[in-house]
Amino acid sequence: MNDKHIVETTFRARYAETDQQQIVHHASYVVWMEEGRSEFMRQSGADYADVERGGHYFAVTGIQVRYLTSAHYGERVTVRTWVEDLKSRLLTFGYEIVNADSGLLLVTGESEHVCITREGQVTRIPEQWRKLLGQ
Amino acid sequence: MNDKHIVETTFRARYAETDQQQIVHHASYVVWMEEGRSEFMRQSGADYADVERGGHYFAVTGIQVRYLTSAHYGERVTVRTWVEDLKSRLLTFGYEIVNADSGLLLVTGESEHVCITREGQVTRIPEQWRKLLGQ
Amino acid sequence: MNDKHIVETTFRARYAETDQQQIVHHASYVVWMEEGRSEFMRQSGADYADVERGGHYFAVTGIQVRYLTSAHYGERVTVRTWVEDLKSRLLTFGYEIVNADSGLLLVTGESEHVCITREGQVTRIPEQWRKLLGQ
Amino acid sequence: MNDKHIVETTFRARYAETDQQQIVHHASYVVWMEEGRSEFMRQSGADYADVERGGHYFAVTGIQVRYLTSAHYGERVTVRTWVEDLKSRLLTFGYEIVNADSGLLLVTGESEHVCITREGQVTRIPEQWRKLLGQ
Repeated sequence: MNDKHIVETTFRARYAETDQQQIVHHASYVVWMEEGRSEFMRQSGADYADVERGGHYFAVTGIQVRYLTSAHYGERVTVRTWVEDLKSRLLTFGYEIVNADSGLLLVTGESEHVCITREGQVTRIPEQWRKLLGQ
Repeated sequence: MNDKHIVETTFRARYAETDQQQIVHHASYVVWMEEGRSEFMRQSGADYADVERGGHYFAVTGIQVRYLTSAHYGERVTVRTWVEDLKSRLLTFGYEIVNADSGLLLVTGESEHVCITREGQVTRIPEQWRKLLGQ
Repeated sequence: MNDKHIVETTFRARYAETDQQQIVHHASYVVWMEEGRSEFMRQSGADYADVERGGHYFAVTGIQVRYLTSAHYGERVTVRTWVEDLKSRLLTFGYEIVNADSGLLLVTGESEHVCITREGQVTRIPEQWRKLLGQ
Repeated sequence: MNDKHIVETTFRARYAETDQQQIVHHASYVVWMEEGRSEFMRQSGADYADVERGGHYFAVTGIQVRYLTSAHYGERVTVRTWVEDLKSRLLTFGYEIVNADSGLLLVTGESEHVCITREGQVTRIPEQWRKLLGQ
């Protein structure tokens, strides 16, 4: 992970994201990972809103999440995102989510994506985005 | 409300819908109201998926929710939905959400909608849907 | 609204918050209002996490939302929150949500809360929090 | 999977669960898996609400989801849930989510859980629940 380009985004855990176990619900981290890659793409010049406007989608084909420690309401969390793997049709992001104040590791994860067209056809990741994501 | 056509849909409160107060989070009821009107439209023959396929949307312009009693994880709840008002361009749904087993009233609500086209233009509710909703 | 103490918080609309109408889903704004009052309380020195730790809850008894314009994925939005009314047992927050870049008004809202104890008993808002919120 | 006890639960994809790609958002399936195991436990006589009332939690330590085909608003989906593995402290559920009408396989998944006490201490799964889940 050390030689990877890592992008960070920090925000607070929301009240609506907690559950009756009084911790952040495990599905919320999946949304946070998505915000992590949104920020990664934005900062790489490959804003995902632009990718979609151009007629391509990075459909999610798989996710994996490992939960180590819980986040709680109001805590500041940082999502660290990097490109784990980039092939002609397949893109894998890696994630670490930490407590932004203590640095405690909360969650590690991965998401796999294929590039599809508006019609749902799997296609090569357009060169323009591949270059920006592969930096 | 007595002379209105009322449609009911019943399901269980989900774990993910609870918050750290150990009750269902107040935004979840807004989603339940939406499912209530989805079911109302489906049973009226005006399935909202078909409305959208036909190029129209019932955009939400306002909601009002009053919270009386809390729902808890695993409890069966019933959403009762009716058309409160139907004008050429404006549609108002009314809702009651009750505990399906005890009958206890949990929430009352209302949602207002205007009909818009795919381009976002406000338009008259197509006669086909108006008739079905106005029964 | 002019003489009120207003607190702002700004963040981006998340992908998960959109729906198939390709705008932010109307229930997401209810969560954003909650984050608005979380931030208001934090900045007033009445952090809601502390209120709960002290054994009190501000239960939501009603919400009202008016939707004027839609937010879209990736847009920066600002939630402006103020105390609309503060009685011994009742607290009302007011909200405006705007596009942070254009200033366009997206949503206005209100939420009503009563103070309850851990046992669910309605009680007076503790003087400590009333003072901080009433500034 | 054939010799496992499988529990099914069927419901419709909600409008709020869709995203701007006009399919169900990938985090929604994580919530559906949770509802799958809620139903599994309920039907096994090990209602999770009772587990928590007894002072135990099955904390999620990992999830894995593979996305094959998308669900859409209004479609009926069936979550099939079974116990993949049951050790003294570790419980793994397996899932298949299919379109309830076409039978098309949408998603496969797994979730891992450890049993913890109210104080957050990892502990053995109480014999009472182990027996019911292991049937």
